[in-house]
Amino acid sequence: MVRIAVLGCGRIGRMHAANIAAHPRAELAGVFDVHRPAAEEVAASLGARLFDSAEAVLAAGDVDAVLIATSTPTHADLLEAAVAAGKPALCEKPIDLSLARVTECAARIRGTSVPIMLGFVRRFDPGHRAVASAVRDGRIGALHQVAITSRDPGLAPVGYLRESGGIFRDMTIHDFDMARFVLGEEVESVTATGARLVDPAMMDELGDFDTVTVLLTTASGKQCVITNSRRASYGYDQRVEAFGGEGMAVSENVRANNAVLFREDFTGQGAPLMNFFIDRYQAAFAAEISAFVDAVESGSQPEVGFEDGRLALVLAEAALRSATEGRAVRVSEIG
Amino acid sequence: MVRIAVLGCGRIGRMHAANIAAHPRAELAGVFDVHRPAAEEVAASLGARLFDSAEAVLAAGDVDAVLIATSTPTHADLLEAAVAAGKPALCEKPIDLSLARVTECAARIRGTSVPIMLGFVRRFDPGHRAVASAVRDGRIGALHQVAITSRDPGLAPVGYLRESGGIFRDMTIHDFDMARFVLGEEVESVTATGARLVDPAMMDELGDFDTVTVLLTTASGKQCVITNSRRASYGYDQRVEAFGGEGMAVSENVRANNAVLFREDFTGQGAPLMNFFIDRYQAAFAAEISAFVDAVESGSQPEVGFEDGRLALVLAEAALRSATEGRAVRVSEIG
Amino acid sequence: MVRIAVLGCGRIGRMHAANIAAHPRAELAGVFDVHRPAAEEVAASLGARLFDSAEAVLAAGDVDAVLIATSTPTHADLLEAAVAAGKPALCEKPIDLSLARVTECAARIRGTSVPIMLGFVRRFDPGHRAVASAVRDGRIGALHQVAITSRDPGLAPVGYLRESGGIFRDMTIHDFDMARFVLGEEVESVTATGARLVDPAMMDELGDFDTVTVLLTTASGKQCVITNSRRASYGYDQRVEAFGGEGMAVSENVRANNAVLFREDFTGQGAPLMNFFIDRYQAAFAAEISAFVDAVESGSQPEVGFEDGRLALVLAEAALRSATEGRAVRVSEIG
Amino acid sequence: MVRIAVLGCGRIGRMHAANIAAHPRAELAGVFDVHRPAAEEVAASLGARLFDSAEAVLAAGDVDAVLIATSTPTHADLLEAAVAAGKPALCEKPIDLSLARVTECAARIRGTSVPIMLGFVRRFDPGHRAVASAVRDGRIGALHQVAITSRDPGLAPVGYLRESGGIFRDMTIHDFDMARFVLGEEVESVTATGARLVDPAMMDELGDFDTVTVLLTTASGKQCVITNSRRASYGYDQRVEAFGGEGMAVSENVRANNAVLFREDFTGQGAPLMNFFIDRYQAAFAAEISAFVDAVESGSQPEVGFEDGRLALVLAEAALRSATEGRAVRVSEIG
Repeated sequence: MVRIAVLGCGRIGRMHAANIAAHPRAELAGVFDVHRPAAEEVAASLGARLFDSAEAVLAAGDVDAVLIATSTPTHADLLEAAVAAGKPALCEKPIDLSLARVTECAARIRGTSVPIMLGFVRRFDPGHRAVASAVRDGRIGALHQVAITSRDPGLAPVGYLRESGGIFRDMTIHDFDMARFVLGEEVESVTATGARLVDPAMMDELGDFDTVTVLLTTASGKQCVITNSRRASYGYDQRVEAFGGEGMAVSENVRANNAVLFREDFTGQGAPLMNFFIDRYQAAFAAEISAFVDAVESGSQPEVGFEDGRLALVLAEAALRSATEGRAVRVSEIG
Repeated sequence: MVRIAVLGCGRIGRMHAANIAAHPRAELAGVFDVHRPAAEEVAASLGARLFDSAEAVLAAGDVDAVLIATSTPTHADLLEAAVAAGKPALCEKPIDLSLARVTECAARIRGTSVPIMLGFVRRFDPGHRAVASAVRDGRIGALHQVAITSRDPGLAPVGYLRESGGIFRDMTIHDFDMARFVLGEEVESVTATGARLVDPAMMDELGDFDTVTVLLTTASGKQCVITNSRRASYGYDQRVEAFGGEGMAVSENVRANNAVLFREDFTGQGAPLMNFFIDRYQAAFAAEISAFVDAVESGSQPEVGFEDGRLALVLAEAALRSATEGRAVRVSEIG
Repeated sequence: MVRIAVLGCGRIGRMHAANIAAHPRAELAGVFDVHRPAAEEVAASLGARLFDSAEAVLAAGDVDAVLIATSTPTHADLLEAAVAAGKPALCEKPIDLSLARVTECAARIRGTSVPIMLGFVRRFDPGHRAVASAVRDGRIGALHQVAITSRDPGLAPVGYLRESGGIFRDMTIHDFDMARFVLGEEVESVTATGARLVDPAMMDELGDFDTVTVLLTTASGKQCVITNSRRASYGYDQRVEAFGGEGMAVSENVRANNAVLFREDFTGQGAPLMNFFIDRYQAAFAAEISAFVDAVESGSQPEVGFEDGRLALVLAEAALRSATEGRAVRVSEIG
Repeated sequence: MVRIAVLGCGRIGRMHAANIAAHPRAELAGVFDVHRPAAEEVAASLGARLFDSAEAVLAAGDVDAVLIATSTPTHADLLEAAVAAGKPALCEKPIDLSLARVTECAARIRGTSVPIMLGFVRRFDPGHRAVASAVRDGRIGALHQVAITSRDPGLAPVGYLRESGGIFRDMTIHDFDMARFVLGEEVESVTATGARLVDPAMMDELGDFDTVTVLLTTASGKQCVITNSRRASYGYDQRVEAFGGEGMAVSENVRANNAVLFREDFTGQGAPLMNFFIDRYQAAFAAEISAFVDAVESGSQPEVGFEDGRLALVLAEAALRSATEGRAVRVSEIG
């Protein structure tokens, strides 16, 4: 059994804690949150040890690994501390909103053999993964084009958005990682366009976009389009399409169930899309924990690591610059 | 927390034990199996108490309720003992292969206020349940016709089939309960036809059918068709359709994921159907435990109880008689 | 060019006339209707000769073949006359509502080499035909079960229904032919159940059913279920499913187009079903004319002929008897 | 009846001629082709007058309108001549490969009241049109994003491609018109990227691309992505998606029929996509003729006219410049 402690007991941390507790090869070794009642609640309901500090967790002999689900500004520090303590870590994205800080962190942990995994959970979604596998296995031949559609069911509160780093660093970052996952080749050029169509007033105030389209190209000419919106009235729209010389693989949306209703006023209505990201990616979150347990058990680096987190942020920076300057930005300009 | 012990640690018992352990309002209070190593394994992996006998379980003060997943011939005895001990029970179907024994058991537990729930898990499938709800809510108007398609992915071993009571009591019984669930009205007449098409030699030897179609009608004229096969080459085929004066609701098959592959040799291939019944009805099994926990907590009878188990068996008997005698059988002829 | 005249210029006759006029290897040689203005209109709009009587059509040297779309009671007489005149005929179903008259007609035309085709248009639907072809080609292995769902979009006027011969002879007859087409083996036994659920008052008055389910079995044990309703609120519901030892083929409903709409109030609504039978089976009606042209050109009997019309009526008679007497009826009892 | 003559009897001209002949309010008034046998064949099979020259057609008193399906370099001359002769014209795209020639033509026909229609047939596809209608009717709220996927089933012959003007002018031009049709607002900026992935050697030789992605934006911030490939192994991939503040409308691919096959080796395989553009857009081509007949009858300009043809070509020029220079190109730079 891999003994994993959870740092940060907000919505995502609680979900991870429950998944760890339910995992057949893992146990929840403890929890910590700067807001003690949050940690107390998780500790009580899942029967886990309550820690007083992140330092105490990292020092504990009966903690094999940590899951970092604290607020974004603490991620890099905790990652560095985990590596220093020799504790494998699964860190929620992003590593940091500042690419400089990420680069500094990269320098500090360079060469470590401690497994570090980034929480790009969508890689573990069975449907998206089936698309990536079809590409890897050659079932669609050489890859030519990728299309990623990712639309949130509703606009996050302004307070959240103000701290988010903007749509590219907060939302598109998942799609940048998905693009890299499916493309299997590094992106060379980024063209992004942003608009304020969902809530122009709020976006003006934030200096952010709520509707973006990003075009990525690789050195070999592969093309990838990412389409984002902060609000899709019909639900959480999450699709991935890969097109190649011998076929196409598409990961379609997921519904609450497979019942369909036919009436005079609608001749075929599917059940609602899985709307909340924790429900939609439930299987993915569980598989992510499994992959982390595998990495901790084997002592090897997981399939999605620190560098993936850094490179997704580089693409976000490039997209922001492209949308701001109205030109294609080469990734090499960024870092 | 409702403390539930599991009697019987075979494949289904183990699955239930894990679901109980993972349930936020339940805990696994103990396990028992006549084959002790099976129970030991579950006890160890889920951290549950190992009991020496069913009697000990029923006598234990820290066991609030039991889940009966032992072999079929023991179900009725254990149900009677649970009622006598005042322990709510969730019993796997069927209650017994003998209708006489079931009727006797009914007489013995008559009037009990102890919650008794029958394990007709498909009622808890989100898709099938959405169909039943559409009927209940009037969204398809007055119900006219129901169609249930239920085909197993593969023929069970001959040893299993020999003890199964035949296809109507073993397999169609789930569909008889689904029919009653969706129809919302008792069946009056049963016409069944059986054939030996999947494995004629084995079926001849067993005196059983592997391919059956059953037509049910109610007093008000509602019609229900059940289509069964012991083997569908393409996977576990589980669909329910309800048609009414104002619409139709259909619960379609469930796939491993929502990825679709397009190639020159197939222009659209969905992912495999969820093939193993424990995977296919995973959400349903979890919801079933929730419904049982609700019933135990509230002390009320669950939505699917002993009488549902008995009536499904009555329909199975009627179907067998119909298929044997080649005529419509009125349910009132049976019991 | 095959010169075809159309007898009967009602809704169906007009549609056939237009299809003949548009066919690359056929021309519309003339039209006739007892209601002269109906024929005049078709003659004018399609540029065809107006005949004064069916006899004149059959005597015309420049008419190679006839399409009989007159009222049902005239079909058998016209078929006999066509055979006597040596003119190949495509006759709308049914041959006659009286099985005795059909049998008499069969005796009179026995041994003719004049091509006689019955208008079971659904055999020519691309989807249904793909199912039948999958069965013939062995792509689903040996056939085990067939399910035919056929629901009209709306109740026909009472005047039409009064002359229709009842639901089995008027509506289910199409499905009996489809069953024979897909089964590829004659039906041995028929069990039918009928109810009055769509319009009980009208059905009571007519002594007819509006909702029926029919179970057919063949000598080898194949099972076929037909589900009919006189009114489906969501449109014209036309589906065929064939299940065999190595697979399943399903012909799904056809929509006006493939656009899907997603909104907050419905998360996926397909376009309306093709609702009017002439639209729904447009491609089938055109293919039917092609098959008739082929038969006339080659002088051979078409794939669906007089005996198919007679056998479908036999099944309708058996179903009516079964529904009336509440028992399985062997086809050999009828004729 | 509108009397329409067809100029050019190649594959597309023949198809249009047959559609005109079959149209209830049109008749095929004559045909002409510089390759006389091609015109003779059409004239004979459809019973139409054979003309000796385009001039003779335009001078004929019994020709109300012309359909121009000759080779691309003759389009502009014939359009000018048709306008001079006062004959409404439906002209196949493109007007000309040279924007200068198109602009000159525009100047020459400026102010004409003669109906001129451009053959952007996809606007008349029932599915794509349903998407555009959903946008117009406000059913998806204010429009935010459009995605057009358009992939040919196979690479055209090198001879055709050499004369085609390149992928943007030959293939994407349809999608530029579709983008304008769905967006309902002019495009302001074009970013295009092209690659040689299907047949790099041939594309190198031609100096053309076979795989392109184009990003369009409008003044109000609407975003549109076009994805093209010269070869999709699984068939002719034609989809349109519109996303707005209150919903999404998607026009999905069209299949030969709605049959689906399930086997052990594929758990759900749809029928092939309609592969040949004349089959795929059969209903659209017929509706296009209807729209032209409407315009001729009413003497009004059709919904898709000369300026639409010119603006699509402007977008093609912008895309080519963008792909060549690696930057966003403002439409105002082109014309």
